Amino acid sequence: MKVITTIKEMQAEMGLQRQTGKTVGFVPTMGYLHEGHLSLIKHARKENDLVVLSIFVNPIQFGPNEDYATYPRDFERDRALAEGENVDYLFYPSVEEMYPHNLSVKAVVLERTSVLCGRSRPGHFDGVATVITKLFHIVMPTRAYFGKKDAQQVAVIEGLIADFNFPVELVAVDIVREEDGLAKSSRNVRLLPEERQQAPLLYKSLTTAKSLIEQGEKDPATIVNAVKEMIISRTNGTIDYVEIYSYPELEPLETLTGRFILALAVKFSHVRLIDNLIMEID
Amino acid sequence: MKVITTIKEMQAEMGLQRQTGKTVGFVPTMGYLHEGHLSLIKHARKENDLVVLSIFVNPIQFGPNEDYATYPRDFERDRALAEGENVDYLFYPSVEEMYPHNLSVKAVVLERTSVLCGRSRPGHFDGVATVITKLFHIVMPTRAYFGKKDAQQVAVIEGLIADFNFPVELVAVDIVREEDGLAKSSRNVRLLPEERQQAPLLYKSLTTAKSLIEQGEKDPATIVNAVKEMIISRTNGTIDYVEIYSYPELEPLETLTGRFILALAVKFSHVRLIDNLIMEID
Repeated sequence: MKVITTIKEMQAEMGLQRQTGKTVGFVPTMGYLHEGHLSLIKHARKENDLVVLSIFVNPIQFGPNEDYATYPRDFERDRALAEGENVDYLFYPSVEEMYPHNLSVKAVVLERTSVLCGRSRPGHFDGVATVITKLFHIVMPTRAYFGKKDAQQVAVIEGLIADFNFPVELVAVDIVREEDGLAKSSRNVRLLPEERQQAPLLYKSLTTAKSLIEQGEKDPATIVNAVKEMIISRTNGTIDYVEIYSYPELEPLETLTGRFILALAVKFSHVRLIDNLIMEID
Repeated sequence: MKVITTIKEMQAEMGLQRQTGKTVGFVPTMGYLHEGHLSLIKHARKENDLVVLSIFVNPIQFGPNEDYATYPRDFERDRALAEGENVDYLFYPSVEEMYPHNLSVKAVVLERTSVLCGRSRPGHFDGVATVITKLFHIVMPTRAYFGKKDAQQVAVIEGLIADFNFPVELVAVDIVREEDGLAKSSRNVRLLPEERQQAPLLYKSLTTAKSLIEQGEKDPATIVNAVKEMIISRTNGTIDYVEIYSYPELEPLETLTGRFILALAVKFSHVRLIDNLIMEID
């Protein structure tokens, strides 16, 4: 595995590789890899000649009161994990390399951002779309892999690729969960022991909602209330949101139909967890 | 020469061509080709294996009171001219092809836009940066050719390529002029006969300013006033701006030094003309 830290070297390397006709699978991450990331890498490994992993904690997608400074980082551990998954290139640039001066241009996301996590994180998805635009130009991938855990991010990236006509195929990979159902996350380490015990309830509330829907419930509000009730009564977490929207458009629904997402965010003492279920009914 | 109207076909074609290691020179235009455009094509032809010309009058870079509807168009003439210059691919998409629905993301230009033409055209350069981003992804060029006549556009594209890390080389080509000095423009046809006679004075005022600077004048205001005086006294045009800035940063200068641009815009009855001179002194 080759570790590359400069944009120039990465572009030169990938330019040469692409000329040989090799396909390139790209997994952009902020590091502190967990099994969710490894699942993305495994998918990329299976479907492409070359696999590129990037690790970059992107400052411009964090708000002023968010956890940029304390976001967990462990490069040596990440490097070993990437090597174990037969990653070919690990792109690991510094903040100065990615943002050498004030940006003279940025990507601004106009839709799909005013709901779910986007509502309380103004500018977050502009930062995501901007760094992904940069990374796509640096890595020039055939396919890019994102986890469905950040379902709103997947919806935004889908719009970015479509509207900017990126010659890149988006691959959205299923959420990887702990045995007890908790979605894997770099931030799970911040749960207090008691909270860690309660946290699987989030996924349980989603699967309970799924059962209700499969039994014929079509009213979004009824589903949302059932999920909220479970979380409030059985965890110490504070609900940030429990919402249902069409997917990937993220438009409100009067009644459940077509493809839609049930998504939630719950705050615990030192960490806010998200989870979701994407369903499709006739 | 192959005329292509769909994004999908253009991307497929260029993807194949790039895999053979061929270099691609790209000339994005809004059509109604004149010798300025042909000069860009000739440069592209000389420096690349393949030449791609695009013709697309981009609606999102026109303001509500601008001349999108009446912008001159003549595809058959353009096609013949392109063929005459041995263009390999002419990309000629419809508005529906480029903008099938509301954009969910756009490029927003944060610097270099509050002066010169950008001041009176809010959003213009966002529209330019967005369409160029799309076109770069569709054509995947090695080099992209722009005329120095739109010097602010060149400065913005330079920022776009640098900050989004496009793997594209920007080539800025000198202004092509009529024998009497008037900069070639698709809009020159709209000058009244009398105005056409006066119009070369714009360039004359720039070269006069250049002489003053070469003789040692270092005060931007003195230069600007000399240019304004010539235009006011010897044409019926109305000055939109005559300004001097560092180039390509487009920052104000206290005294002339380094690389800078003297740029002007003058309104005639049915058309607004621009011209500029980029100079460098110690």
